[in-house]
Amino acid sequence: MSQSPLSAVPDTRIERLVQWATLVEFLDIPDPVVQRTKELFLDTLGCAIAGRHHPAVAAITRFATQMGPSAGTCELIDGSLSFTTSPAFAGMINGASSHVVEQDDLHMSSITHPATVIFPAALAVAQDVGSSGQDFIAACVVGYEVGCRAGEYLGRSHYEKFHTTATAGVLGVAAAASRLLKLDYSQTLSAVGTAGTQAAGLWQFMVDATHSKQVHTAKACFDGIFAAYAARDSLLGPRDILEGPRGMGAALVPGETTPAAIDRNLGADFALLRSSFKWHASCRHTHPSVDALLKLMERHNVGFEDIESVVTRTYQAAFDVLGLSGVGETVHQSKFSMGFVLGVAAKNGQAMITDFTEEALRDSSLREFQKRVTMELDEEIDRQFPEKWQGTVIVKCKSGEQFTESVSFAKGDPELPLSRSEIEAKTRALAAYGGVKNHSKIEKLIERAFNLEHERDLRGFSF
Amino acid sequence: MSQSPLSAVPDTRIERLVQWATLVEFLDIPDPVVQRTKELFLDTLGCAIAGRHHPAVAAITRFATQMGPSAGTCELIDGSLSFTTSPAFAGMINGASSHVVEQDDLHMSSITHPATVIFPAALAVAQDVGSSGQDFIAACVVGYEVGCRAGEYLGRSHYEKFHTTATAGVLGVAAAASRLLKLDYSQTLSAVGTAGTQAAGLWQFMVDATHSKQVHTAKACFDGIFAAYAARDSLLGPRDILEGPRGMGAALVPGETTPAAIDRNLGADFALLRSSFKWHASCRHTHPSVDALLKLMERHNVGFEDIESVVTRTYQAAFDVLGLSGVGETVHQSKFSMGFVLGVAAKNGQAMITDFTEEALRDSSLREFQKRVTMELDEEIDRQFPEKWQGTVIVKCKSGEQFTESVSFAKGDPELPLSRSEIEAKTRALAAYGGVKNHSKIEKLIERAFNLEHERDLRGFSF
Repeated sequence: MSQSPLSAVPDTRIERLVQWATLVEFLDIPDPVVQRTKELFLDTLGCAIAGRHHPAVAAITRFATQMGPSAGTCELIDGSLSFTTSPAFAGMINGASSHVVEQDDLHMSSITHPATVIFPAALAVAQDVGSSGQDFIAACVVGYEVGCRAGEYLGRSHYEKFHTTATAGVLGVAAAASRLLKLDYSQTLSAVGTAGTQAAGLWQFMVDATHSKQVHTAKACFDGIFAAYAARDSLLGPRDILEGPRGMGAALVPGETTPAAIDRNLGADFALLRSSFKWHASCRHTHPSVDALLKLMERHNVGFEDIESVVTRTYQAAFDVLGLSGVGETVHQSKFSMGFVLGVAAKNGQAMITDFTEEALRDSSLREFQKRVTMELDEEIDRQFPEKWQGTVIVKCKSGEQFTESVSFAKGDPELPLSRSEIEAKTRALAAYGGVKNHSKIEKLIERAFNLEHERDLRGFSF
Repeated sequence: MSQSPLSAVPDTRIERLVQWATLVEFLDIPDPVVQRTKELFLDTLGCAIAGRHHPAVAAITRFATQMGPSAGTCELIDGSLSFTTSPAFAGMINGASSHVVEQDDLHMSSITHPATVIFPAALAVAQDVGSSGQDFIAACVVGYEVGCRAGEYLGRSHYEKFHTTATAGVLGVAAAASRLLKLDYSQTLSAVGTAGTQAAGLWQFMVDATHSKQVHTAKACFDGIFAAYAARDSLLGPRDILEGPRGMGAALVPGETTPAAIDRNLGADFALLRSSFKWHASCRHTHPSVDALLKLMERHNVGFEDIESVVTRTYQAAFDVLGLSGVGETVHQSKFSMGFVLGVAAKNGQAMITDFTEEALRDSSLREFQKRVTMELDEEIDRQFPEKWQGTVIVKCKSGEQFTESVSFAKGDPELPLSRSEIEAKTRALAAYGGVKNHSKIEKLIERAFNLEHERDLRGFSF
């Protein structure tokens, strides 16, 4: 059953996936995938600058200054510090900052936010080795594919316990980094295996609003980069880390795995095209309800003050995640309260990053609205999750009228993509939230991101 | 249910454990515990020097040179390179090298090898902050207590899937490092929580003899040190990472947990006193059978050539671990083959580090002996595992005679401790295996280790 680490003939699913990851060329990647990569990369830059002031980012940055070199080949997306470091620490810091404001992308069927781990890690390694824009794009496409397929394999029951963005994402990071380091098939397989045996990230932090969410994405970047660099230096990783008898499926999945997800339609389906932009600044599990509520309020001309109560019908995973944050005592927790988020959306007509503030936490009209929102499990919606993240809201008005509205897709989903100008607007808003005053620098970054396949290197992608 | 991160009143088991860890003083630690700490520390130094040439250690060292500072406050136990680095990387490298030769200690009831993570990490942090010998001893005692109690809590079903030395050990590392950094109760609780949400390490590497075993211990050191330094810089970790609804027990334990283990008899029972030295150089699951076989051969005057077959009666976990390495194609795998190990012991009268060689792998008499060894599950022995690691062997001789021998304890167990001269002899053998020629340096290290409580700092503990 075991196979020599030197063998190069793929005969397991993960081996086929890794073989594809090492062989695909930039020119094989369809243009819509290239375009979406650039959009998601720009979106991640915005998320990172908006999240720069979080205490977890500060603590991780301080750790990097204590443990890392005094200067290195890699930059922070928050360029204000003129701080440079080694790729493992640059990935770690950018991986933390880009996951703070809950505005990073979502790949539904894997239940992961791939951008927050893939782009920071790939950017760091690309800066370290001087990769071109095309190399970078190909590495990110590969990283998405490996990470998202791993997440799909691990599935819903894994997500109930683990922060899949990190546990599956670390494999994607290793694959993207391996690609930029030009590792061969066997080395890449080792890197992915070493990444998987480090997979970690528990939801416990949700209970007391502590800082692990950023730790998980930061460490997925660090650990995946470690796996790739160490594989280049002959560190062997387990070959079948997903399906092996003591692999991730056996240890980290209490329910069903989806083996076919690992290697079906390689080169034809692209995970990156199935990733959604987050338009609202709240937990992604609230978005279908927010969109349905806003649609309902517009269609029936219902105002915030008119609403007596709201019932949202949703899937089980929404209960699992949103149920951990209580009533939302902190700004971060408030983005995980369905009632609070719907209140914000109903009152402001949007739930943007600037709508979740300390002031909002103390707004008694929002707190009262929050109490009048109830979540109900919808069997049909649940059955389609995580392939589809749907939502239905039922609004009872003070007038006695009752309305129902459903959405199959949220704004920003592949079926309802953001326009280029919306993506740019979101980037500008995120940069403003992050305190960037230099508008021409923002415009320059936007231009460079959309020109990525012609960039000679990845240096200077900092605000 | 959730509690403010700022609250300082312990009301969960992990809070009581962490409170004890922050309050215990060196003078509270009984002398036998202090003495055993020094012995285990010396034993770890020997293991690290013996493991210095492993490819995993080389790859991790190279990673540290690429990602870390060009020089730092911390040394490698292998001092030959005059290499200094930051504490996270020193812990990482020493944590890898001390787990290579399968000679590090064993804490039975937690099924962990605590020394290989606690001492390397504590040594690095102690060197970084200039801790005294007494501070170091207290930190290691605390690290053992937190790591081993976490391992006992996680239990047997966890160990079937996970390398508990790393998954529980990382909490011990965080506690030991926190202690040396003089973190307060709330900070230490954060550090332990951040450690636990990074807990990782799968057995899949056993299937193809890849390098994750050392990755796990290396990363437990790195991750636990990260958790402590970040907690000092205000990173909040989940407060109830063991028993919380999305904590380690919920996510990483398919079977039963043992909550009482977390905080029973704090300050009265010391995990460190319950740790065994490894006398034989093979997987610890083979030791009861090796000791029983050697005892049987001596008692009945049976020689290697006289043996027709051996049946070893053992516990389930031995099957789970030993069953993954096949017939032992590599030197490392051969230490996990019950048949091969018993052959070595029977032929050489010992199973020391110098007995497992490429030559031995090709020894046809050992390979034939190996085939005549059968493992059987013994219900009674299994019921007592992991509190007791017992073994019975039944030997059928070519003469037709049959003998049975059992052992309740292995040589090196708390009940059959190594003498000081045996510990010194083992250290000298390990150093010789590691290629150390400077005998006076070895003697000096032995002397310093036994004088540890009077040492003013921990610098220079290198071969």
